[in-house]
Amino acid sequence: MPIPPPNLNAPFNIVRLSHAELRVTDLAWSRSFYVDMLGLQITHEAADSLYLRAMEERGHHCLILQKAAEPSVGVLGFKVWSDEDLDKAAAWFTAKDLPVAWIERPFMGRVLRTRDPWGIPLEFYAKMDRLDPIHQNYKLYRGVKPLRIDHFNMFSSNVDASLAFYGEMGFRLTEYTADDVTGRTWAAWMHRKGGVHDIAFTNGTGPRLHHTAFWVPTPMNIIDLLDLMSTSGYLGNIERGPGRHGISNAFFLYIRDQDGHRTEIYCSDYQTTDPDHEPIRWRLTDPQRQTLWGAPAPRSWFELGSVFEGAALADSDLKAQPIIAP
Amino acid sequence: MPIPPPNLNAPFNIVRLSHAELRVTDLAWSRSFYVDMLGLQITHEAADSLYLRAMEERGHHCLILQKAAEPSVGVLGFKVWSDEDLDKAAAWFTAKDLPVAWIERPFMGRVLRTRDPWGIPLEFYAKMDRLDPIHQNYKLYRGVKPLRIDHFNMFSSNVDASLAFYGEMGFRLTEYTADDVTGRTWAAWMHRKGGVHDIAFTNGTGPRLHHTAFWVPTPMNIIDLLDLMSTSGYLGNIERGPGRHGISNAFFLYIRDQDGHRTEIYCSDYQTTDPDHEPIRWRLTDPQRQTLWGAPAPRSWFELGSVFEGAALADSDLKAQPIIAP
Amino acid sequence: MPIPPPNLNAPFNIVRLSHAELRVTDLAWSRSFYVDMLGLQITHEAADSLYLRAMEERGHHCLILQKAAEPSVGVLGFKVWSDEDLDKAAAWFTAKDLPVAWIERPFMGRVLRTRDPWGIPLEFYAKMDRLDPIHQNYKLYRGVKPLRIDHFNMFSSNVDASLAFYGEMGFRLTEYTADDVTGRTWAAWMHRKGGVHDIAFTNGTGPRLHHTAFWVPTPMNIIDLLDLMSTSGYLGNIERGPGRHGISNAFFLYIRDQDGHRTEIYCSDYQTTDPDHEPIRWRLTDPQRQTLWGAPAPRSWFELGSVFEGAALADSDLKAQPIIAP
Amino acid sequence: MPIPPPNLNAPFNIVRLSHAELRVTDLAWSRSFYVDMLGLQITHEAADSLYLRAMEERGHHCLILQKAAEPSVGVLGFKVWSDEDLDKAAAWFTAKDLPVAWIERPFMGRVLRTRDPWGIPLEFYAKMDRLDPIHQNYKLYRGVKPLRIDHFNMFSSNVDASLAFYGEMGFRLTEYTADDVTGRTWAAWMHRKGGVHDIAFTNGTGPRLHHTAFWVPTPMNIIDLLDLMSTSGYLGNIERGPGRHGISNAFFLYIRDQDGHRTEIYCSDYQTTDPDHEPIRWRLTDPQRQTLWGAPAPRSWFELGSVFEGAALADSDLKAQPIIAP
Repeated sequence: MPIPPPNLNAPFNIVRLSHAELRVTDLAWSRSFYVDMLGLQITHEAADSLYLRAMEERGHHCLILQKAAEPSVGVLGFKVWSDEDLDKAAAWFTAKDLPVAWIERPFMGRVLRTRDPWGIPLEFYAKMDRLDPIHQNYKLYRGVKPLRIDHFNMFSSNVDASLAFYGEMGFRLTEYTADDVTGRTWAAWMHRKGGVHDIAFTNGTGPRLHHTAFWVPTPMNIIDLLDLMSTSGYLGNIERGPGRHGISNAFFLYIRDQDGHRTEIYCSDYQTTDPDHEPIRWRLTDPQRQTLWGAPAPRSWFELGSVFEGAALADSDLKAQPIIAP
Repeated sequence: MPIPPPNLNAPFNIVRLSHAELRVTDLAWSRSFYVDMLGLQITHEAADSLYLRAMEERGHHCLILQKAAEPSVGVLGFKVWSDEDLDKAAAWFTAKDLPVAWIERPFMGRVLRTRDPWGIPLEFYAKMDRLDPIHQNYKLYRGVKPLRIDHFNMFSSNVDASLAFYGEMGFRLTEYTADDVTGRTWAAWMHRKGGVHDIAFTNGTGPRLHHTAFWVPTPMNIIDLLDLMSTSGYLGNIERGPGRHGISNAFFLYIRDQDGHRTEIYCSDYQTTDPDHEPIRWRLTDPQRQTLWGAPAPRSWFELGSVFEGAALADSDLKAQPIIAP
Repeated sequence: MPIPPPNLNAPFNIVRLSHAELRVTDLAWSRSFYVDMLGLQITHEAADSLYLRAMEERGHHCLILQKAAEPSVGVLGFKVWSDEDLDKAAAWFTAKDLPVAWIERPFMGRVLRTRDPWGIPLEFYAKMDRLDPIHQNYKLYRGVKPLRIDHFNMFSSNVDASLAFYGEMGFRLTEYTADDVTGRTWAAWMHRKGGVHDIAFTNGTGPRLHHTAFWVPTPMNIIDLLDLMSTSGYLGNIERGPGRHGISNAFFLYIRDQDGHRTEIYCSDYQTTDPDHEPIRWRLTDPQRQTLWGAPAPRSWFELGSVFEGAALADSDLKAQPIIAP
Repeated sequence: MPIPPPNLNAPFNIVRLSHAELRVTDLAWSRSFYVDMLGLQITHEAADSLYLRAMEERGHHCLILQKAAEPSVGVLGFKVWSDEDLDKAAAWFTAKDLPVAWIERPFMGRVLRTRDPWGIPLEFYAKMDRLDPIHQNYKLYRGVKPLRIDHFNMFSSNVDASLAFYGEMGFRLTEYTADDVTGRTWAAWMHRKGGVHDIAFTNGTGPRLHHTAFWVPTPMNIIDLLDLMSTSGYLGNIERGPGRHGISNAFFLYIRDQDGHRTEIYCSDYQTTDPDHEPIRWRLTDPQRQTLWGAPAPRSWFELGSVFEGAALADSDLKAQPIIAP
């Protein structure tokens, strides 16, 4: 498919990705993983849920851990510019025949709940409780010193279609992988907030969440986390890295919790604010797009993801993502 | 003065700061300083001028070094979202009785030249020649490995008035220093692109440019630059740092070229995209606002700046910036 | 004075500096400072003393904090190769008419207690209790992540004489500052263990301990410590840095506890194992010897030190250390 | 085999490993690799050889690249304390019925050439030309900023026997891998200079050189090298890493030149100067000994090495090194 030009007149103004709700089977275990080990800060704790923020965030939460019988992803959240944008969003989704509901959520103002055409549960809001800054309260820093949520990466059974849908919503493409033979798009990175991405899509059985990413200060913090995890009982939760992606130029590490939810620890992408910022095209045959330095990814990284609550899975009609053999 | 609320309906859409023109007296010396030592990349070289970009920039230039008999700052440049925004900008400055001209500039589309009420020469554009990415061409990286231009910092003889003017233009306040006694604002940091600032104003004889800042990957690159400068003939050009600012939380270094133009090397501020992002207020009596770790700044840093071409100087009616004694 | 050649046939084999005993007036405060904030590990805790080690050390302690009415330094400790070396050391000090005593010390084998000619209390031992490694127990790392004790730096009223005495004992010179006019040595760095120094002497009222240094992994750990100290109540304990010394090429930070005991946080010197390793001579008139990057040190750093228990002070006959004016 | 106690009365005093001679088939290619890319400094250049040193070394060379028809390792060099030690060494090797010759080598004093019992060519010297320091000449730093040669790692067909031979020579064991079932030693790390190793032996077809290691300032320099190699034509020369070894606790990267000679880039091991420093025992069944973080090594890393000139290969009688499956 030809890559669509950016929609510079978005139907409503999404500021940035905001938060994810992960459903987890053992809240105590997840608390140890995300709070004690990874370093996120608790902003609200209840019997069956935990609200967390990263060190430079002022919004109440970027991650909700919700106790559940089975692991899944409850919702992906996005912040819009104003209440007026919420109403525009409701109209836009309604016009697409997608479900629209106004729901109550703690710590947030009006919340619009909907789904994308593949069933991914999405919520939009303009106001969330604001908390005092803690980014200079350095004695609170732990683990990988997570600064902020950075992006969501999803498996899509039709990346061209996902790219078209979210592009129309105003997400702008920064990098993508194209198949020279079929012309199809295999993966796409799209942003609102001026970095490489708020959301990305990768070809595969979808919709599933591949990972949620957190931004950290420097590669040294990722090395520190690897040392900590590998000597404190979390060796088996290290999945891939450290390495540098060709796409996004990010230094990365992937870890998975015991429910299979994957987190990317991420730093050093680049600024993409210009409306005429040109997307970078990578060839499917170029292995450096995934790993600039050449180290292979494990099979799990290509295959496993978290299901979204209430979304039916569909296989991609493109052949399975090639595994780069070690 | 009470701090004005952010203007979320800007009269025209400024994307980000873009470039500065520095007038320098010895182009060969400046080439060594900014290119060979600091690590900026040449994108155009002529007998009397040099155009430079940083490693992740795709716009043609972020710094123009222009040969001149006397050092000064020729202009500060900003990128707007669209050509339509240029016309809105022209109308807005005209309505303020400020000079407006459409000028020709190499490597750029339509350029609107104007001045702020204190005479700072400004230019706005929507289109500049786009260049191929070089951010993954690692053999080109040198010096401090500058990634992108980050902000301008200016002396203002009336920070409250500067804050009001640029705030109306759509710049949003992130941090500021206030005098509890007089209620006056001593310094203000304002952004468009989602970081701590695109522009900042500090009380003093103005208008003058205090510094232009470049973003670098990590504090280690700043340490490398200090080692390089101090052992290759540039010891006298190191002015202040390394250190961390309380305001912006940035790790910094200040250097000055032989014409007195100051550059800040800068990393690790934070994301400010939310429209309801609350500005942080610092008290004038808190020395940690300037230097979190307590090391004093030299007198030159408080007093010296670059004049703007064609702008008359005025003293501030506030008492001189207090020097923190060593 | 001409610099003496290294004594490659030491009268007894000192392996390395080992430990210091600091007498402190408030053990609880010191525990917070050295353990909770700086990150040393407790290996023994009693009502009036605290024994600490750094992360890669296997010897029982490198620092003893001893409750006392007045702050002072109780002793500087050195490890020798074998019990036979202890006897050789006793003979050598006896031949110099210096006091020699065999004392009991917890966690150590035979301990030889003596003083140098200026009264600095010294102790030598071959065996200290050995502890299990903790250097890969990353969840224990805190604060600046101190890896090992690195060196002692002392004020000497006669550096040439100190250099001669310790040189005869087998310490080898790596760097020194000489006064071109008088030919006198102003400061000297001497090692046994193969780095820039185990001990150093600086001209001044002596004998006093200028500082004890700890080695840390990278400059980033020093930046982390500065952030932590400056935002958790220890801002006033930061004295100088960060910076790079010309001498030793080390990246440094100096901090002082509330009793005035100074600690240097230190990394990145170089290997000096070769017996024909040539000392580097610095001129007294070269300010880069102290600070490669040019930032001045505060007056306190030049003037203040900890007294040694039982040692009388003497002024240097050389003029006072010049202060580099900011 | 039971691990022998350290020989604290070495028959002659080896100070440290010193240099290697690598025979290479294309000197121009090797010059680009080791000088332009890796960052070693040329100290002598002739038509068929290149002498190199690292940034903090004062000895004339740590690496000799010698043009040859086939790749091999010409010799491994060690520095001894004094000329007297050279004579003691000659006597010791003679008593072992090993070949002893006094040879001429440029830039060096008396050179004793011999072989170990498996044919590894060794040379010992006390004096090599000394060069001026360049460690503070920061504009010379390039590539990975190599500071000094750190160690040699060799395949041995009988690690227990290698350990016994080099142990008797005075090398002291710091870490080793033992097979609980057979009691045999699979790998051993041994030092003279006070770090984790000057030499190491790994079970396999031997004798072959597994790698020569260079010490660099911080993990960031290794990340920089990966970025540089992967985007400037050396992607295929990256073999393994970055990662942290359990054994030695080092942050590492392995690269191979086009002749198959392997270089380890290495930092952050620990101090081992104490004569009673206890070796750390790792179990053969513990995969974290090789890779603390769990990432597998490629097969080439376990199997490939450089042959020594004139040494016949022998298989190990232990079963092949287990490959950790990805």
